[in-house]
Amino acid sequence: MTDDLHTLTVSTARDLIRQKELSPLELTQACLRQIERMEPSLNAFITLAADPAVEQAKRAGATLVKTPPEELPPLFGIPFAAKDLYDTANLRTTGGAQFLADNVPSADAAVIARLRAAGMILLGKTNTHEIALGVTTVNPHYGATHNPWDLARIPGGSSGGSAAALAARMCPAALGTDTGGSIRIPSALCGTVGLKATYGRVSLRGVLPLSWNLDHAGPMTRSVRDAALMLQVMAGYDPQDPASVNAPLGDYLTDIEGGVRGWRVALAEGDFIRAADAEVLAAVREAARIFESLGANVETVETSWLHAAAQANGLMTQADAAAFHHERLTAHPEAFGEDVRRRLRQGAAFSSTDYSLARRTQTEMRRRLEHFFADYDLLLLPSAAVTAPPIEGPDAVAQAKLLTRFTAPFNLSGLPALSLPCGFDRRGLPIGLQIAAAPWQEAKILQAGHAYEAATAWHKRHPTPA
Amino acid sequence: MTDDLHTLTVSTARDLIRQKELSPLELTQACLRQIERMEPSLNAFITLAADPAVEQAKRAGATLVKTPPEELPPLFGIPFAAKDLYDTANLRTTGGAQFLADNVPSADAAVIARLRAAGMILLGKTNTHEIALGVTTVNPHYGATHNPWDLARIPGGSSGGSAAALAARMCPAALGTDTGGSIRIPSALCGTVGLKATYGRVSLRGVLPLSWNLDHAGPMTRSVRDAALMLQVMAGYDPQDPASVNAPLGDYLTDIEGGVRGWRVALAEGDFIRAADAEVLAAVREAARIFESLGANVETVETSWLHAAAQANGLMTQADAAAFHHERLTAHPEAFGEDVRRRLRQGAAFSSTDYSLARRTQTEMRRRLEHFFADYDLLLLPSAAVTAPPIEGPDAVAQAKLLTRFTAPFNLSGLPALSLPCGFDRRGLPIGLQIAAAPWQEAKILQAGHAYEAATAWHKRHPTPA
Repeated sequence: MTDDLHTLTVSTARDLIRQKELSPLELTQACLRQIERMEPSLNAFITLAADPAVEQAKRAGATLVKTPPEELPPLFGIPFAAKDLYDTANLRTTGGAQFLADNVPSADAAVIARLRAAGMILLGKTNTHEIALGVTTVNPHYGATHNPWDLARIPGGSSGGSAAALAARMCPAALGTDTGGSIRIPSALCGTVGLKATYGRVSLRGVLPLSWNLDHAGPMTRSVRDAALMLQVMAGYDPQDPASVNAPLGDYLTDIEGGVRGWRVALAEGDFIRAADAEVLAAVREAARIFESLGANVETVETSWLHAAAQANGLMTQADAAAFHHERLTAHPEAFGEDVRRRLRQGAAFSSTDYSLARRTQTEMRRRLEHFFADYDLLLLPSAAVTAPPIEGPDAVAQAKLLTRFTAPFNLSGLPALSLPCGFDRRGLPIGLQIAAAPWQEAKILQAGHAYEAATAWHKRHPTPA
Repeated sequence: MTDDLHTLTVSTARDLIRQKELSPLELTQACLRQIERMEPSLNAFITLAADPAVEQAKRAGATLVKTPPEELPPLFGIPFAAKDLYDTANLRTTGGAQFLADNVPSADAAVIARLRAAGMILLGKTNTHEIALGVTTVNPHYGATHNPWDLARIPGGSSGGSAAALAARMCPAALGTDTGGSIRIPSALCGTVGLKATYGRVSLRGVLPLSWNLDHAGPMTRSVRDAALMLQVMAGYDPQDPASVNAPLGDYLTDIEGGVRGWRVALAEGDFIRAADAEVLAAVREAARIFESLGANVETVETSWLHAAAQANGLMTQADAAAFHHERLTAHPEAFGEDVRRRLRQGAAFSSTDYSLARRTQTEMRRRLEHFFADYDLLLLPSAAVTAPPIEGPDAVAQAKLLTRFTAPFNLSGLPALSLPCGFDRRGLPIGLQIAAAPWQEAKILQAGHAYEAATAWHKRHPTPA
């Protein structure tokens, strides 16, 4: 095999393993070598699980030789990384927090268990903001993750470790969580693919809550097809997760090459969208033209009514986080870093009236978006208004607002949204295209994302080696 | 015709009108005469619409002679009353509040419009607690409604005017709203039938909100079949109501006589239930025995886990009400009566943490009840822990807790629940049986209620004339 096994997508690696042209051990070791090479400059991981991964890969190799391909589980032998918010049995799970630095769960999060049952091999736990609260700031306990495209810049948050690891080819797949954009923003800033499915589609059991009402678990990958492969395993009703919804499972792969001919595609416009950087806007408009060239009927649509979402989403996130952590926040405020402690206290200071009105905005936004998607198959908009800002820039709060502005509406409403690469700015930093759709229309989003990706080559470009 | 037309059920009156043995005018006038007779002692109405009702009844009579029965709308010529929380075009709608004393809406609430389109005739607007907030207290602006079974006692709230009007045979059908039990409690205390369908089943558009997240609009009648006839017209998706859910409509009538043979019926037991008065408990247990005699498999089940619901439901109600009224509460606190002002201020004083934790209880209670109803078709429990307490008794708050204890779990969870008469205490006051089921199982609840009702005769007894 070549020496760039770590650059393989899930899809390609899967085919090669099934054809017995690639062993799980070769693939796992290639990823671990790349982690060893890149981790000192990126700090993408909080905890590595190299030895158990190698052991599992060896066992997988033994299984592979004696098992016909059609009897292998769907993601057999593929390594992945998980944001350190997901419980992993016998492997510490910090949630990015000091107070969980020694936390070793006895059981896997539901999604981790599903992926392991599908044959995946866990490489380690990726860096995140403390308790996943934040987008731009540096984790005070585990340090900053660096963006592989420019080490002086953030990878975005809070699933920045997963996105950086993917962009740097440390792993072919990773898990993120998304409460205000935390899968899609780092995917945009790192030039990778991230999917937040409909609220309730993917189990949250065993994932440290940030907001019970806005959290989403989801896959992060380097191609849209890989996101579909992951979602197909991750999705499903979990009666033990009170947020899980017993809706029919989609088929995310069969029609993924079906294209978008005749689809009704809305391109978001208006003052709300024009807050985005000119280069970001130009890239998203160019993406819309590509959809048009693929046969979609693209229409520009005024969407400034989405503006109310980000504020309500931010308030609810801080308030729900303060509620979840209220005992520790009262008894041991010093357990939290300064930034998170301040945000939690802000959250606790909101009144029930603030919360109730935000919840009403949530109900109304969900209905308005459902009406909107009666007229359109898809909505195209930027994933983030800007490309990756510098680490600890002077305007962290302003940058955070620009980063969550376009993603938060789909947390508040619970609608599915994908981020995928759609170009680069003049500095060579990746730009993310966001594709949203009606509830449970993940298959449609993935089909559209795949059509766009196939028509472009953004996903094939690597970051400049650090 | 006889002189007791006002005692007819919706179902019987409907048949007689279709057979042209009864005219809408005769029926309407009989109800208006009974209102004239009883209203001085009951105070069930805030506003009457006698003249428009008579006019509409006359027009209906003209339509009736020239229309074949099968072309008549489903509730043609049947009078009804609406809680004064429902907007009625050109008829004042006070919400029980002084600050809305001169409020004359330009349009009907969605449900009023549906019932009018189905041929019903509005007699007037029934008394309620101020902004529907309260169960035991007296409306400071429109006075106490008296329970027809004992004028010194409350009819329950907040749909007490509707229940008293039904019990006193002032109308064959009425509308209530239910945020913590406000349809089911007065139905229990007045010996009538009240249904709270699944959250989102009946449109709330044009109904003054108490809690956006717990309010339910629903029918109140004197028989279970009548509740089914009303729900069949009232239910349905309303895209303009953000709380409405686009779930398939049930057929509430076809199988209503199907019985309960072989059904799995849980009878609630445990400390939680034993807070109920001994006579109430005995009546509900006897009802369970009747279900058994009808062929159901009855099992006693520990349900003390429902206990957390009432507190969360009460907190959320007060907080949501304070949020809805926050501008008036700040600028014009004197607009509210003392009791409601105090409750709204309590609501506003809850923190976002209080609210968020109550919301989490809501999510968990919904899931737990959904699991519960995977094992049982129905849950039987008292509607209220006590029979009608005295007006302005010394322990109004304690009584209110006893009244909402068993109803609130189905507001918090949004699951459907029916209250119907199941006997009398030693004072001759009615006792209510509550039947709950899984989401969207209104047809099942109505079928069970009808079977029980047909096997007993509680619904045929009238209150002692006042």
